[in-house]
Amino acid sequence: MNFCPNCGAPMAFRVPEGDDRKRNVCTATGEIFYDNPRNVVGTIVERDGRILMCRRAIEPRLHFWTLPAGFLELGETSADGAARETFEEAGVRVREPRLFNMIDVTHIGQIHIFFIADMVGDDYAPGQESSEVRFLAEDQIDWPQLAFPTIHRTLERYFADRRAGRFDLHVESLGATDWRSMALDREPRD
Amino acid sequence: MNFCPNCGAPMAFRVPEGDDRKRNVCTATGEIFYDNPRNVVGTIVERDGRILMCRRAIEPRLHFWTLPAGFLELGETSADGAARETFEEAGVRVREPRLFNMIDVTHIGQIHIFFIADMVGDDYAPGQESSEVRFLAEDQIDWPQLAFPTIHRTLERYFADRRAGRFDLHVESLGATDWRSMALDREPRD
Repeated sequence: MNFCPNCGAPMAFRVPEGDDRKRNVCTATGEIFYDNPRNVVGTIVERDGRILMCRRAIEPRLHFWTLPAGFLELGETSADGAARETFEEAGVRVREPRLFNMIDVTHIGQIHIFFIADMVGDDYAPGQESSEVRFLAEDQIDWPQLAFPTIHRTLERYFADRRAGRFDLHVESLGATDWRSMALDREPRD
Repeated sequence: MNFCPNCGAPMAFRVPEGDDRKRNVCTATGEIFYDNPRNVVGTIVERDGRILMCRRAIEPRLHFWTLPAGFLELGETSADGAARETFEEAGVRVREPRLFNMIDVTHIGQIHIFFIADMVGDDYAPGQESSEVRFLAEDQIDWPQLAFPTIHRTLERYFADRRAGRFDLHVESLGATDWRSMALDREPRD
């Protein structure tokens, strides 16, 4: 931050009195502007044993495959946000989202929260942020072509739990190095 | 937002092209600044059947009682943030935080996330945001003197689960009207 969003004065990045980390502080009024992690919410929707997935029509990771997910908005619950993203990106209505996986992604300041949800009706269609929507069986998933490590991990957990016959809650964190261990491709396949 | 934090130009609050809700947009560059819900993380720590609680030394809800909790910071996991807040506010070290309750508080744009955690050692002492730290038994809790509806609800869930002999995960939302139904006091008792 270079300028105070409130009064337009220059900003400083320093430790305020009584605090222990640097914050954006207005040099005119002393007002402090905090920067906090943001939540990404999404769903796992299964139909006939296959998982609802979207091919990204936007950056980052353009053309890679993802679960429907996006930033939680003000005024909605995390479950409602996950349902909204599923409709926006895949044209799919869902009900009864159940919390399945919460992944802290500290190096990018995000929490990715996935819900297992039931599909309502049969409609699906790519929204403006997707180029393609498909229901994929486990053996149809092209793992290196997944968009993000949290998608990779969430699908791993889902299929493992499905085999075990029971869906547990997972709380974990993923770091920058997990990208490498998952061997996600750097370029999308055509 | 009145001024662009990046370039200092006047801001507009309007729906950007391709979006469906109003955002803060820089009138000079078109840069969009998103405002998203923030996460509050905290713990429930039990010792000898009593719950670790803090009396607030800061606004809002100065002098009311709370579980140790605060805003999640960039660069930390939600469990680590909950542990940090517990040490900062109550001087208590904890280990193995387990997700217990996730409450969407949509009317203030927050998610409150509570972990059950085990106390390490015997030390406790009020930090700078607490005037008093006590371990309280269920029948010692002065419910109307709790600081926030999410604290009230989380303690209710905890004691109910403890009686049932099993701690479940709770995912729920609380709105502005819950404050009234919980009958929290408007003034702190002395």
